[in-house]
Amino acid sequence: MDAMGLEWLSASEAARAIAAGEISSEQLVEACLARIRSAEPRVQAWQYLDPDHALLQARARDLDHKEGRPSGPLHGVPVGIKDIIDTGDMPTEDGTVLHAGRTPHADATVVAMLRASGAVIMGKTVTTECATYAPGKTRNPHNPEHTPGGSSSGSAAAVAAGMVPLALGSQTNGSVIRPAAYCGVYGFKPTHGLIPRQGILKLSRSLDQVGVFARTLEDIALLAEQLTGFDEHDPDTRPRARIPFVQLAASEPALDPLIAFVKTPVWERAEDETREAFAELADVLGAQCQELELPVSLSDAWGWHRTIMEAEMAANFDLEWEKGRDRLSESLRGQLARGREIRALDYHKALARIPKLIDGFDEIFARYDAVMTPAAAGTAPAMATTGDPAFCTLWTLCGFPALSLPLMSGANGLPLGVQIVGPRGDDARLLRTARWLVSRVQAG
Amino acid sequence: MDAMGLEWLSASEAARAIAAGEISSEQLVEACLARIRSAEPRVQAWQYLDPDHALLQARARDLDHKEGRPSGPLHGVPVGIKDIIDTGDMPTEDGTVLHAGRTPHADATVVAMLRASGAVIMGKTVTTECATYAPGKTRNPHNPEHTPGGSSSGSAAAVAAGMVPLALGSQTNGSVIRPAAYCGVYGFKPTHGLIPRQGILKLSRSLDQVGVFARTLEDIALLAEQLTGFDEHDPDTRPRARIPFVQLAASEPALDPLIAFVKTPVWERAEDETREAFAELADVLGAQCQELELPVSLSDAWGWHRTIMEAEMAANFDLEWEKGRDRLSESLRGQLARGREIRALDYHKALARIPKLIDGFDEIFARYDAVMTPAAAGTAPAMATTGDPAFCTLWTLCGFPALSLPLMSGANGLPLGVQIVGPRGDDARLLRTARWLVSRVQAG
Repeated sequence: MDAMGLEWLSASEAARAIAAGEISSEQLVEACLARIRSAEPRVQAWQYLDPDHALLQARARDLDHKEGRPSGPLHGVPVGIKDIIDTGDMPTEDGTVLHAGRTPHADATVVAMLRASGAVIMGKTVTTECATYAPGKTRNPHNPEHTPGGSSSGSAAAVAAGMVPLALGSQTNGSVIRPAAYCGVYGFKPTHGLIPRQGILKLSRSLDQVGVFARTLEDIALLAEQLTGFDEHDPDTRPRARIPFVQLAASEPALDPLIAFVKTPVWERAEDETREAFAELADVLGAQCQELELPVSLSDAWGWHRTIMEAEMAANFDLEWEKGRDRLSESLRGQLARGREIRALDYHKALARIPKLIDGFDEIFARYDAVMTPAAAGTAPAMATTGDPAFCTLWTLCGFPALSLPLMSGANGLPLGVQIVGPRGDDARLLRTARWLVSRVQAG
Repeated sequence: MDAMGLEWLSASEAARAIAAGEISSEQLVEACLARIRSAEPRVQAWQYLDPDHALLQARARDLDHKEGRPSGPLHGVPVGIKDIIDTGDMPTEDGTVLHAGRTPHADATVVAMLRASGAVIMGKTVTTECATYAPGKTRNPHNPEHTPGGSSSGSAAAVAAGMVPLALGSQTNGSVIRPAAYCGVYGFKPTHGLIPRQGILKLSRSLDQVGVFARTLEDIALLAEQLTGFDEHDPDTRPRARIPFVQLAASEPALDPLIAFVKTPVWERAEDETREAFAELADVLGAQCQELELPVSLSDAWGWHRTIMEAEMAANFDLEWEKGRDRLSESLRGQLARGREIRALDYHKALARIPKLIDGFDEIFARYDAVMTPAAAGTAPAMATTGDPAFCTLWTLCGFPALSLPLMSGANGLPLGVQIVGPRGDDARLLRTARWLVSRVQAG
């Protein structure tokens, strides 16, 4: 196999080639590092990267292979890690000067899981400030004048730019789906509680969810399969049998899936070309897609999300507020100031809405395999902002699995993402539905 | 076996005798009903009791036995149910006129578990108003001028008065341990999350814990063993292997347990005779008991408990507040009024203390098998109040298993309870330690 272009291999292809001895992990990581050397000045996806340390890991994996030690499904494959996820061998700075130089003593559970799967921990990708709204340095690989989206900016951009085949992010509102859509890669945020959050910066226990980025659906399945599991340190995880993501995502549905095209109460924020693109998309899907109106009362959900997020953030960032709020961005300071004044009563009332909201979707998901809706209002806006997460809010609040599919593009040539959403726990089937949808669109 | 005095059989004896065909469930239930007829005018332990319905259940169990159908460990044994625990065949009124006449459509999980174990659901026992502080009608069986304690007033009194061998209660502060101590029975509040709370009036998810009452330790183990388990509707329960409560509680410890006598920061509230009684008790235990001082900083825990309880109660009783707060007692109204003004930030800060508190006891429970401390300040006070829960607050907040042992009495002849507390999850061993302690005291 030619070493040229290795950086564009999918993780699944790369893992297979490494296992077959066709390429070494060192070759793959070297190709990715070369790509980073050339593209990083423009994209700026990395907060921390030590090429020697990445190559050291790669050579250790190659030695494992040579000496016949057992290897995992990601053996030798490099993964980028959002810089709010602790790594015991690299700094984790959370996108704020208040945590600059912070060096955790242990890996987050997901990082330990990746290492156990044989992955090479490539480095730390740029996050917005504390995974909220104030942008980091990263730019959209398709056009550096535009945002990559946030808060998992570096992870989405690094995967899109061919710097790593896989990356981890997190979503409390729209921080996986939105940057995936803006950067034109697949982004997957599984069901709340499916992936353990121990060792990841806490914004909001009720809303924080780990997500993954890749350039193929198969890779999304491969990465997600390594990360689900019970962690006694994450009270929202549950012991469960291993989910066969890869197998289910690759299988054919017995019946063509039925998709509910849902505009949601934030549809008015969708740009004209987004509206047109979705109308065309619905046409392509034909009888397998039905437009579905959600009750107007659902529009309160955006307020409940905000109450929960800001109240929990105020508690989790109490120390930062007390010690250094003048070093926080105005937007984060505003969130915390509001959060500190929320009454426990209003917080609990908002929380109590979540199970009722989820129940309200029972009938929809009994009939439809997935909800289809924009991933964002349009293509990536200019660099001053990370874009509007509103098209993700409802699904994040419900903890539903959501996936951004890089199926369309805008007049400016930037990617336009399609979001599909499934019921809680039905993550692997959502990937299967996505695969069907992608093939249907590509055929249409 | 003589039918006279069947009401004083322990549940373990009764279950054995029923299984052996020596007595019928109907005979047992009839004896308990006779006891209720004679003692109820004085004790007033029952909020709802339909003797015919109880006898109907007993006869059905006897028919099961006659026809050789499989039977559970409580086959034919009557159990009293605190009137905040839903029963699908009887009202559940929560001790407030606002819920008068309320008839649930389904059993609470614990009631369903009891039925699956073959128990006869005898009736509903008196609770204080919404399981908080305003007393119900129940009186102390040892002296009707004195309180039975609260909030599980009827359950403790009914077991003490020989009306049922077993009863269920609940504890959010001191609602199992305190009435058990005042009424001179065993009361056991297992680890938070061990017994599912689905179908039980919610005061505080973080603090509500189900408890059990019996006249013997063996019966406590027997009843607890039927009630532990996972319930998907109680997010604080976890799937776990069945705990062999009966077997472990009956076993001999390999080494004599070491007991930490802990006065706690509320020791100043202990009455003189309580102080003297505990000094004597420590003497009797000799080298197996060491006095242990807790850090003064722990005294903040009572405030954290109050913040959590009142904030969560305000959310859970929001409807009662909005629709009928003038029909609530002044004390409950005061709790809710305070709870409604608590900031989410302060609530979360208090919540965040719990795991740290629990960790702080690691060293103590590594060295000591159990903590020994008063169950209450003294014997039961006069009827105007249900007594002070302060000696239970710290242990409830930590979710530690706690047990009240009816080992002593005051100068007024009323019972004086000894509370022992163990580490989370070590419930069955705590019963074994209790058995050792009881035998040591009875021998001393």
